[in-house]
Amino acid sequence: MTQPDLPDVSGLSIGILGGTGDQGKGLARRFALAGHEVLIGSRSVGRAQEAAASLAPTVRGGENAQVARDADVVIVAVPWDGHKATLESLAGDLAGKIVVDCVNPLGFDKQGAYALPVEEGSAAQQAAAVLGESRVVAAFHHVSAVLLLDPGVDRIELDVLVLGDDREATDIVRALAARIPGARGVYGGRLRNAHQVEALTANLISINRRYKAHAGLRITDV
Amino acid sequence: MTQPDLPDVSGLSIGILGGTGDQGKGLARRFALAGHEVLIGSRSVGRAQEAAASLAPTVRGGENAQVARDADVVIVAVPWDGHKATLESLAGDLAGKIVVDCVNPLGFDKQGAYALPVEEGSAAQQAAAVLGESRVVAAFHHVSAVLLLDPGVDRIELDVLVLGDDREATDIVRALAARIPGARGVYGGRLRNAHQVEALTANLISINRRYKAHAGLRITDV
Repeated sequence: MTQPDLPDVSGLSIGILGGTGDQGKGLARRFALAGHEVLIGSRSVGRAQEAAASLAPTVRGGENAQVARDADVVIVAVPWDGHKATLESLAGDLAGKIVVDCVNPLGFDKQGAYALPVEEGSAAQQAAAVLGESRVVAAFHHVSAVLLLDPGVDRIELDVLVLGDDREATDIVRALAARIPGARGVYGGRLRNAHQVEALTANLISINRRYKAHAGLRITDV
Repeated sequence: MTQPDLPDVSGLSIGILGGTGDQGKGLARRFALAGHEVLIGSRSVGRAQEAAASLAPTVRGGENAQVARDADVVIVAVPWDGHKATLESLAGDLAGKIVVDCVNPLGFDKQGAYALPVEEGSAAQQAAAVLGESRVVAAFHHVSAVLLLDPGVDRIELDVLVLGDDREATDIVRALAARIPGARGVYGGRLRNAHQVEALTANLISINRRYKAHAGLRITDV
């Protein structure tokens, strides 16, 4: 695997829609630590600014639409419930941008987590359907928010599967994944194969429960 | 992860339905190398015996129904096309047995592999629906047949995700996975979460193509 061939992404600013949730905040923290300009988005400016202030003085908070316009690359980390409506409302702001969907459509019952059916096939395909003028990439589904947020964790040993139909965009997101110490970005296929990557989060939750772990994936032989 | 707590499975005989295909033959080879009695099943006794003879003198071949009755644990490695009909015809022979489904329902076109929809949710759930009196476990989806069959490969570094609703059965199959040097058996959730594990094989095929690899998974932190 030739990570040195990846583009230099150190100058890119990262916006995170739904950045007040654990996953979004955790990713924001790691990208800020890596030296990126990070913008946390929320429906509420106040909550976005509060989340930003809890992370680092360099992280800024703002309304989702503002963050969508200002950031070079935008990560979607909103709850699955509001996924489609949020993206529909931001389609214009996100036009032309690389949009990284990390949303896992999951249900929970007393037997644990399970994958929800998605009309478009997956959250990422739904994003691509709604955001016709954006470059949609799927990634960061399996990164544990607990580890991302833990100040005692310096490295996160896992491979981030990066899916999409736009080679340049997936390479940029693979390079972004590699900005988290310990992580690699591994190309994981086209967007039409995103469902199982999102759904596999349910299996990782089962594994975490059984082994009392924060499980992630490594891809062998690459 | 406490592999030493797993049951001793060294005395179990392994039957492989569809054992004349690459995946079945590869698994047969590795279990024979580990000292198991291995029975290769096929619709055609002749082809089963031919496949068995190509592997090791200790491997025997027989008709699927005979193999289903004779083996302690039965692995289903038939093509997805004939999956349901084959299992329906063997339901009586497989009653009471641990049946390990490793079938990946995939389609292929010029963009590569993709997951096929399955009415029951997954091949493993279809097996469970058809084999009401068997103990169905899903496993061995991601093991490369090329590596299994390569005489130059002594170890296969990967984790076999083992899914099922019967704890004793999944523990036995986890122990069987660990009989392949380099491999571990990791509990991967209930059968209702089997679809994404089967479908992820499409992503591994994309990864293999991009990186010229025989990719597998490792689960981190367990």
